[in-house]
Amino acid sequence: MTRPLAVALAGLGTVGGGVLRLLRENADIIAGRAGRPIAVTAVSARDRGRDRGFPLAGLRWYEDAEALADDAEADVVVEVIGGAEGKARALVERALSLGKPVVSANKALIAVHGAALAARAEAAGVPLAFEAAVAGGIPVIKVLREGLAANRLSRITGILNGTSNFILTVMRERGREFAEVLAEAQKLGYAEADPSFDIDGIDAAHKLAILAALAFGRPVDFAAVHVEGIRAVSALDIALAGELGYRIKLLGIARRLEGGIEARVHPAMVPAEAPIARVDGVFNAVVAEGDFVGRVMLEGRGAGAGPTASAIVADLIDIARGRATPVWGAANGALDASLPSLGIAAHHGAYYLRLMVVDRPGVIADVTAILRDLGVSLESMLQRGRAPGEAVPVVLVTHETSETAMREAVARIAALDIAVERPALIRIERG
Amino acid sequence: MTRPLAVALAGLGTVGGGVLRLLRENADIIAGRAGRPIAVTAVSARDRGRDRGFPLAGLRWYEDAEALADDAEADVVVEVIGGAEGKARALVERALSLGKPVVSANKALIAVHGAALAARAEAAGVPLAFEAAVAGGIPVIKVLREGLAANRLSRITGILNGTSNFILTVMRERGREFAEVLAEAQKLGYAEADPSFDIDGIDAAHKLAILAALAFGRPVDFAAVHVEGIRAVSALDIALAGELGYRIKLLGIARRLEGGIEARVHPAMVPAEAPIARVDGVFNAVVAEGDFVGRVMLEGRGAGAGPTASAIVADLIDIARGRATPVWGAANGALDASLPSLGIAAHHGAYYLRLMVVDRPGVIADVTAILRDLGVSLESMLQRGRAPGEAVPVVLVTHETSETAMREAVARIAALDIAVERPALIRIERG
Repeated sequence: MTRPLAVALAGLGTVGGGVLRLLRENADIIAGRAGRPIAVTAVSARDRGRDRGFPLAGLRWYEDAEALADDAEADVVVEVIGGAEGKARALVERALSLGKPVVSANKALIAVHGAALAARAEAAGVPLAFEAAVAGGIPVIKVLREGLAANRLSRITGILNGTSNFILTVMRERGREFAEVLAEAQKLGYAEADPSFDIDGIDAAHKLAILAALAFGRPVDFAAVHVEGIRAVSALDIALAGELGYRIKLLGIARRLEGGIEARVHPAMVPAEAPIARVDGVFNAVVAEGDFVGRVMLEGRGAGAGPTASAIVADLIDIARGRATPVWGAANGALDASLPSLGIAAHHGAYYLRLMVVDRPGVIADVTAILRDLGVSLESMLQRGRAPGEAVPVVLVTHETSETAMREAVARIAALDIAVERPALIRIERG
Repeated sequence: MTRPLAVALAGLGTVGGGVLRLLRENADIIAGRAGRPIAVTAVSARDRGRDRGFPLAGLRWYEDAEALADDAEADVVVEVIGGAEGKARALVERALSLGKPVVSANKALIAVHGAALAARAEAAGVPLAFEAAVAGGIPVIKVLREGLAANRLSRITGILNGTSNFILTVMRERGREFAEVLAEAQKLGYAEADPSFDIDGIDAAHKLAILAALAFGRPVDFAAVHVEGIRAVSALDIALAGELGYRIKLLGIARRLEGGIEARVHPAMVPAEAPIARVDGVFNAVVAEGDFVGRVMLEGRGAGAGPTASAIVADLIDIARGRATPVWGAANGALDASLPSLGIAAHHGAYYLRLMVVDRPGVIADVTAILRDLGVSLESMLQRGRAPGEAVPVVLVTHETSETAMREAVARIAALDIAVERPALIRIERG
């Protein structure tokens, strides 16, 4: 058998430890699939003294992650430091410049700097792989970049953040409010101490930007993704959605429309019978729609040491086998940089509008008059309970209309003296 | 751009036509992903004169499929003739012997002769690809062979035959019997005039044999797959399963157990909330379970011109890019030929046993005594309706027990004078 593929690993947290463990525990299988053994020979992390629960004997240690790129023996650099800037970016750039293949789990880095990094990788003629950056162990990058490569894809829909999906699932199952479920998730270790990246949709937006670039064959454009998180989702809206036959999910949606590419992350109502509506807890899912293949759905664990390590080592096996694919599926010159990004203001779709209004005569007439004036037609209306003089929820579900009309409607309704709190507006998707 | 990859296509039925259409309609995308154009330059089919609805001008025509392999210009041979023997086998063998890469959609050929063909491909140093042979457009071969390659897989569960799944779905939704739904499916074109391959489980068994070989890294062994079809599934059992919280699906299941590999295709009861239970109609799904990745599920269209062409052209793009993978994931010499195949007699699991018995005192006592004597313990029992002196269904759900005990129980119960018809026995799976 050939000489082992020597890996320099930057980052020894949960994921880095998972990679070390996987390469050791499944060394026989991996060597068979890769055609040669794969072994970590050099590592880098912040604190050398910390007990990480796995042996580091025999591995060359670097204080400075960037210096790993210069390790003379390393054939490949694996970056699991995280963050779009700093050491992660410096290491990846340096490794590519030195002509070393890179495997990264870093969605922020790939979403923000992926176009420039791909140019470096192409110039050096080496792979830059990032299967672990999106949807953990689900091989969605490989499926989009290779498995569905013959298709003109029209739409990607994903549950891309396990923390948000876990919180929404618990809110629905137990009828509880966001803040308390978040606190519980933090105690259980399902949410970070600073949960913003997850619950404000940024993590999902990084992943969606990557998927959209792959699906539509154009340079990655994170800045163009519209992002809303789940902080404003209430237990009441989840319950009302259920009554209407929907579930509320934090979705990432990228569509190829006539005028360009739409990419957005926000809470969305999907029919309860849609396959993606059933993806609960920390699971992730991606639905890809192609002109020949139809709809393909992938589902699995989107995070955690095991699934992430599975994706990273799959990338290493591809590199060991010499299986090369352009970073974004086609050569950088073949990507369509002319496809414009459409802002959320251009969105058209159906909407759920929930008001808390004082229960008195004429309220519904005022609200429906505003919608009529804006050309918004209603599919259904739901009024829960009767409590004269007090606040009651009123739900309006629209037919397809424009985002601009709905935003104007919300502003006008909020200005009425009947509205007790700001109306809730949730986009409806077919899933 | 480089010279086009020249494809010789054997078979111009639905699938062959789909490949021609896809290569033409998405030529721009395919050339970008493949790094060069891909074009069919030679074809073969039985009847040259037939109008197929697509143009064949400019393509070299061969009366004899096998002769396609010798076409001097062809870089790759695509075989969509079908069948484990005859022209399909001859063509694939000849092409590999001539050192030409082969893409085949032929599950029977790969399941039955896949080990020998892989030896030929390895000797010639050329790819033999068959993404389209299993689950149509779902890239399950690529996912098992590459995407999950770092995992020790323990189990594959699949809905692998769209015709059977369609029939079972309609039976459940409309409460109708097998024979009439089959007749309707034949009229609609969802089932063949001779439906045996689909409804007797053979097609699913071909696919399962292929998946098991890939998942467990051993030579493909179609003969070892236990096969039962759906002819014996009744509307009554589907309804009773529903009452108990289950759905009946034709599943292919391959498991790595301590003593070896178990592979079986049969109707199975799965919990209604299991993701695979919700895969209805002509859709296919595969769940793979790995030690690091956990459970990954893939779902999509398992047949049809579009999805099958999508898979074939994905294989062609891999070949155009020079992305090579050993036929069975690892070199033939690295496969574990020592792993024994376990017969169905060694199976352990839970069972659904439904009897039609004369409704009179002592009947349940007789039946439960038989089960007790065989060491089978019951999880639950369901008796529907009361009709003294007439036949009523009685359902017994067992805890985990052995196949041999259940077969003996069925034989003994059938021998009682209380049993009106042969008991129905359905294995219960966790999905």
